[in-house]
Amino acid sequence: MGEVIYGQGKPVDQIRMAMAELANHHPVLATRLSLEHGRELARTFPSGHLWEEAGLFCLGRNLEAADPKAPNSDLLIVTAGSTDLPVAREALGVARFLGLSASLVSDVGVAGLHRLMPHLGTLRQAKVLIAVAGMEGALPSVLGGLVKAPIIAVPTSTGYGANFAGLAPLLAMLNSCAPGVGVVNIDNGFGAAVLAKKILDGYA
Amino acid sequence: MGEVIYGQGKPVDQIRMAMAELANHHPVLATRLSLEHGRELARTFPSGHLWEEAGLFCLGRNLEAADPKAPNSDLLIVTAGSTDLPVAREALGVARFLGLSASLVSDVGVAGLHRLMPHLGTLRQAKVLIAVAGMEGALPSVLGGLVKAPIIAVPTSTGYGANFAGLAPLLAMLNSCAPGVGVVNIDNGFGAAVLAKKILDGYA
Amino acid sequence: MGEVIYGQGKPVDQIRMAMAELANHHPVLATRLSLEHGRELARTFPSGHLWEEAGLFCLGRNLEAADPKAPNSDLLIVTAGSTDLPVAREALGVARFLGLSASLVSDVGVAGLHRLMPHLGTLRQAKVLIAVAGMEGALPSVLGGLVKAPIIAVPTSTGYGANFAGLAPLLAMLNSCAPGVGVVNIDNGFGAAVLAKKILDGYA
Amino acid sequence: MGEVIYGQGKPVDQIRMAMAELANHHPVLATRLSLEHGRELARTFPSGHLWEEAGLFCLGRNLEAADPKAPNSDLLIVTAGSTDLPVAREALGVARFLGLSASLVSDVGVAGLHRLMPHLGTLRQAKVLIAVAGMEGALPSVLGGLVKAPIIAVPTSTGYGANFAGLAPLLAMLNSCAPGVGVVNIDNGFGAAVLAKKILDGYA
Amino acid sequence: MGEVIYGQGKPVDQIRMAMAELANHHPVLATRLSLEHGRELARTFPSGHLWEEAGLFCLGRNLEAADPKAPNSDLLIVTAGSTDLPVAREALGVARFLGLSASLVSDVGVAGLHRLMPHLGTLRQAKVLIAVAGMEGALPSVLGGLVKAPIIAVPTSTGYGANFAGLAPLLAMLNSCAPGVGVVNIDNGFGAAVLAKKILDGYA
Amino acid sequence: MGEVIYGQGKPVDQIRMAMAELANHHPVLATRLSLEHGRELARTFPSGHLWEEAGLFCLGRNLEAADPKAPNSDLLIVTAGSTDLPVAREALGVARFLGLSASLVSDVGVAGLHRLMPHLGTLRQAKVLIAVAGMEGALPSVLGGLVKAPIIAVPTSTGYGANFAGLAPLLAMLNSCAPGVGVVNIDNGFGAAVLAKKILDGYA
Amino acid sequence: MGEVIYGQGKPVDQIRMAMAELANHHPVLATRLSLEHGRELARTFPSGHLWEEAGLFCLGRNLEAADPKAPNSDLLIVTAGSTDLPVAREALGVARFLGLSASLVSDVGVAGLHRLMPHLGTLRQAKVLIAVAGMEGALPSVLGGLVKAPIIAVPTSTGYGANFAGLAPLLAMLNSCAPGVGVVNIDNGFGAAVLAKKILDGYA
Amino acid sequence: MGEVIYGQGKPVDQIRMAMAELANHHPVLATRLSLEHGRELARTFPSGHLWEEAGLFCLGRNLEAADPKAPNSDLLIVTAGSTDLPVAREALGVARFLGLSASLVSDVGVAGLHRLMPHLGTLRQAKVLIAVAGMEGALPSVLGGLVKAPIIAVPTSTGYGANFAGLAPLLAMLNSCAPGVGVVNIDNGFGAAVLAKKILDGYA
Repeated sequence: MGEVIYGQGKPVDQIRMAMAELANHHPVLATRLSLEHGRELARTFPSGHLWEEAGLFCLGRNLEAADPKAPNSDLLIVTAGSTDLPVAREALGVARFLGLSASLVSDVGVAGLHRLMPHLGTLRQAKVLIAVAGMEGALPSVLGGLVKAPIIAVPTSTGYGANFAGLAPLLAMLNSCAPGVGVVNIDNGFGAAVLAKKILDGYA
Repeated sequence: MGEVIYGQGKPVDQIRMAMAELANHHPVLATRLSLEHGRELARTFPSGHLWEEAGLFCLGRNLEAADPKAPNSDLLIVTAGSTDLPVAREALGVARFLGLSASLVSDVGVAGLHRLMPHLGTLRQAKVLIAVAGMEGALPSVLGGLVKAPIIAVPTSTGYGANFAGLAPLLAMLNSCAPGVGVVNIDNGFGAAVLAKKILDGYA
Repeated sequence: MGEVIYGQGKPVDQIRMAMAELANHHPVLATRLSLEHGRELARTFPSGHLWEEAGLFCLGRNLEAADPKAPNSDLLIVTAGSTDLPVAREALGVARFLGLSASLVSDVGVAGLHRLMPHLGTLRQAKVLIAVAGMEGALPSVLGGLVKAPIIAVPTSTGYGANFAGLAPLLAMLNSCAPGVGVVNIDNGFGAAVLAKKILDGYA
Repeated sequence: MGEVIYGQGKPVDQIRMAMAELANHHPVLATRLSLEHGRELARTFPSGHLWEEAGLFCLGRNLEAADPKAPNSDLLIVTAGSTDLPVAREALGVARFLGLSASLVSDVGVAGLHRLMPHLGTLRQAKVLIAVAGMEGALPSVLGGLVKAPIIAVPTSTGYGANFAGLAPLLAMLNSCAPGVGVVNIDNGFGAAVLAKKILDGYA
Repeated sequence: MGEVIYGQGKPVDQIRMAMAELANHHPVLATRLSLEHGRELARTFPSGHLWEEAGLFCLGRNLEAADPKAPNSDLLIVTAGSTDLPVAREALGVARFLGLSASLVSDVGVAGLHRLMPHLGTLRQAKVLIAVAGMEGALPSVLGGLVKAPIIAVPTSTGYGANFAGLAPLLAMLNSCAPGVGVVNIDNGFGAAVLAKKILDGYA
Repeated sequence: MGEVIYGQGKPVDQIRMAMAELANHHPVLATRLSLEHGRELARTFPSGHLWEEAGLFCLGRNLEAADPKAPNSDLLIVTAGSTDLPVAREALGVARFLGLSASLVSDVGVAGLHRLMPHLGTLRQAKVLIAVAGMEGALPSVLGGLVKAPIIAVPTSTGYGANFAGLAPLLAMLNSCAPGVGVVNIDNGFGAAVLAKKILDGYA
Repeated sequence: MGEVIYGQGKPVDQIRMAMAELANHHPVLATRLSLEHGRELARTFPSGHLWEEAGLFCLGRNLEAADPKAPNSDLLIVTAGSTDLPVAREALGVARFLGLSASLVSDVGVAGLHRLMPHLGTLRQAKVLIAVAGMEGALPSVLGGLVKAPIIAVPTSTGYGANFAGLAPLLAMLNSCAPGVGVVNIDNGFGAAVLAKKILDGYA
Repeated sequence: MGEVIYGQGKPVDQIRMAMAELANHHPVLATRLSLEHGRELARTFPSGHLWEEAGLFCLGRNLEAADPKAPNSDLLIVTAGSTDLPVAREALGVARFLGLSASLVSDVGVAGLHRLMPHLGTLRQAKVLIAVAGMEGALPSVLGGLVKAPIIAVPTSTGYGANFAGLAPLLAMLNSCAPGVGVVNIDNGFGAAVLAKKILDGYA
């Protein structure tokens, strides 16, 4: 299906070499790229696709292309606030790289139910949801009361002070009063997309 | 207005003596009483009023009496789940002891918006809200998007595992995406009621 | 499908009343019961089924009955050590209560790969796995390299000292090098079974 | 009343665009600005007002203008030490942006009661107090014994070592022996001002 | 000068044997005794002195005897609240056992400066102070602004919720804005008295 | 005696202005200076004394001058490893600024008793000791068994990994098996010197 | 060589059955037994050997028998204080069960070097050392400077307050300034003995 | 055998001077060098050997030279992922500096047993293993079930979010279900090599 290279903390040369080698056989995706590393890869591989806001660079697929099924995607990624977008976009890009039909509903945090409710139809149509939230991390709990599909919760390190770099939403999600929420590591958009892929593969 | 004795961890004799002494001059309230201590005080002071479910014993006032203004109380105490009730009742009893018009809406956690929404009128009528929640502690965030009144958030130690005895909802409440939430200590129904009293005193 | 009552920390009278009321309409399951509470419920409702080792009491279904599809169940629950069994049995009983075909493979912790490997066929046949582990919580990582199905990870509070009541396996599971693991709260067999139900419902 | 943009961690372009759009309809305030971002906004919007020490930039109001009612303001912001000033100024600027009558008493930490006591008249005149403190976070406790008005406590990340970036004063404030203190997140001057606004709106 | 036996968690037989052996040569003090252990020692050694409220049993000295120099003692032990008294009494008893002139001022927590201020003369006369406080642990900071003598701070595990069994006052004391406070372990009245002894020995 | 300005995190202009103002009346000491800030102050005040390794700049005294009484100083500062030296030097400089007779014995960590033992005479001659240690923070415990004088323990943030920026030695020092050790905040050489000053003032 | 059953938290019936089954083929050791469980096993298996102070019960070997090689044992277990003895005895009993020549030196904590030093010859003769310590956990660091053999460090949960149930010595041991110390879990005497066995097996 | 200088956080001048002085008598190794410091040392001492990827610089030995005994080395260093390599190389280089026969097997994390199993012969031949792993830190547990030799576990700070800079694998390793694992500090390749040296010295 393709290979994924985790880019954080790696020298750009190492990523470049790995991409060149793997791209002979498969599509390749590099994640967690800094702006500079992403742009350097784009110069090396002009045929590739760089999605700066998601920290992704891909050879062999276009991650940002509109999903023809949207807003009826199998996978719906939902975010609480605009600062959660980079993680949500990582999940979205990885999901598309893995061949999923996926789209994004953003900025529907729980203090603004009036922004969430108009999306209820879309939310209920998705087969799997990924809820991305920092701050108090309550989005999966509210969603869990509204939809029947499995929910994958991604805490983000958005916030300050007693957020403790994502600990607050992580604990909140693990303690969700909506049963049946599966939690992944803080900022782990990649892992959420892989779990969604595994669930959706079972449906096929 | 009355005196309050914090009963937790104190020998019942010490509480009894303090009550006897203070009751000559004021109404007196003892909080955080175990079932045994509460009943022993009720035997000593037959004219007093014991509210077992709230851990309260009072000389000189009846804490459980229906509030004549309810459901139009100045102070509305809202709970997420039924396990939050002991803390909510402590807040309710203390509020009434302090002379406030207060009532309680319970079991309206964020995974059940359909249970919360019918109370919207009542919620918006209150001058101050106390939101009591364990688990992921999201109730104040949702309320903060629905009402304009100040919200006092009380995390409870309800939960297990990664709840860490109330740490999860405490952090969630401190990180609420609804600005303007004031948080008190875990299980501190008493402190929430006192803060409500101070705010409402300013309105008078 | 049935109603579930969380029994931990609740007085037995409250559980009994709730069961009596709900059982008129649905099967009812009470979870997290102490031995005494479970036996008291069994005396009150002689037609019910008590599973002591799982802390479960059920009216209207038999949770321990051998699954006719086993070992080809849709849901496979896998445990690292024998001290993880109570949580695994909670997951198993809840899954059966929810109507899932579920079975259990136990005592296949990662320090004994020779005990895990003979189950490889069974592991690969399941549509969803629940991995229950205390100590270092490595079971989901090893399973993630062996099967393609989604894995739900349940850390248990088994252990002592630097286990910190389940914190060690919780963190390990959130950091699994096998991507696509969804984690639930410490000891939360119930939540794992509900998530499995949601995923398997999508397959139907 | 106006719109507020949280500026921390956002690219200056994003803040600039949001300000331009919102300023057509309302006064707009950007918070948590770095020095560079603040100055860049001031160059873009020469009619705006930059308060560097508070990390604030405002279109449509002057935040630093002397409050005509001072020192008889409705809201009094009190700080323990001079390193708490940026957070206190954020609270002050936001309060004025929200239309409150607000002023500031600074450097009256609890190890210098002789500096605090001369302000007793001013302290007792305010309808709401915001106490801003790092280090051991004791200011709200001392104030709580001196005034009857509600106190909003803001821990700051001032300090080093076992301060743990504001954890020490946060815990101290949650454990205040003066009942009726509402705590907000570490360094959250904005949230404190919003809570003060909600309380004071009730008085009007 | 005498021997001290730390009694917590030890079987009473082991304490009894140690006392019997040591008492031949020196005064002996056992600390951290449960009520039962204390009373059992008192039955074994009728000439000994049991101070139940301090968890102390002593052979060869009377710990509770009024100090002839009080209130002009060299060492003054000051407590914030009445729940801090057991730890304060441990410090007082140990100090007297070590031969110090020591007395106690209690219930002068920082939310009640009007209760603290009348003791100012006594406070300023002491050569060393021990400040015992739970909750927000602010007492040493306030004292540090009022006296010149060295202050030994003892956090207590008094409190609940976000007190985390004494962590809150421990951190507060380590972060005191009054420089020159020496902190000992939570509830460690014994250690505080020994440090006072070492300091006062230097004065002699 | 002089004024001290805490320099960490403050703009150099603010420190400069404060020094200029205070220096008219007293000796002034600035602490926690970065290399750049220290050198900038030295250029502004050529008569001042900069001690780079200690992060100190002083007007009106020379902090590094050999102590005429050494090695028979009243105050002895002892360090475990060479990485603890900056904190130890801060303590030494502040002590001299405060007028104490103070000297330093370094690199005598507990894994090298053969390096500690030759200093036994010097150690036993001091009236007060400050023990500065990172890593496992065991130095005060070993010293406590060798000398009778009061010991002030300063944990340092030296170390990595499970040191958690000084938490490891802080906890070790609070749990010292040598009773009578007073602990100050991590890296708080200043506070240790002030406490030594208060103790030694009592001896005078 | 024998089988080991971890007894903590297991019903005595389960342990009894496991022992009966395994004892047909090997010596069997049960660890972490409560007093009651140990005595119940001793009644069931009168030929077995119960070591109450170590929480051990053994079929087929005598764990307490004096080691003929002592004090020249291959393995030397060293403890800081008397409260560390139960863990040290677990290590000693397990080591003997595993066939090692092992003995014990106790109560040589680092605040009493004069008690440690007389054992220097014995310490230097051992091929492997196990250092058991609670409180500040400094013993392995001091030993590491005195002997060349590998040191296995066992933190114990002895202590109170900021000991945090063994966290303080655990962190201290991980940060030992003596390189080459291998740490096991808090109170894990069993694991330390097994590691010693593995090392000593290599010497044979 | 040689001297080792810990280079982290030290000015390059200090390292250079120490190396120059010590190199007259012994081989010298500097560890934890930044790229710049390493290269600067290489310019100063052209006869030395810089191993950039390991942060090591050595005078008097070549650390990277192929081990003539490999893959039958006495010490085998095993890593889970490629990001663990810097720590593993530090261990390898230090081991060789200390004169050990040591080699490295990398990228055999527990989610890829098919990559680990081909090395089984090599793993079982080693006399001591060092297992280096970040993420969930499960490698020592799996190895412990496969080999009989003692295992030294090194957690690395590889990872993000709930990894908490190495805390997750540290706790996992301390809780390993494979008994007999000795753990060193996070990223402490040096300490692991020294412990291996002490163990192997006993075999000689």
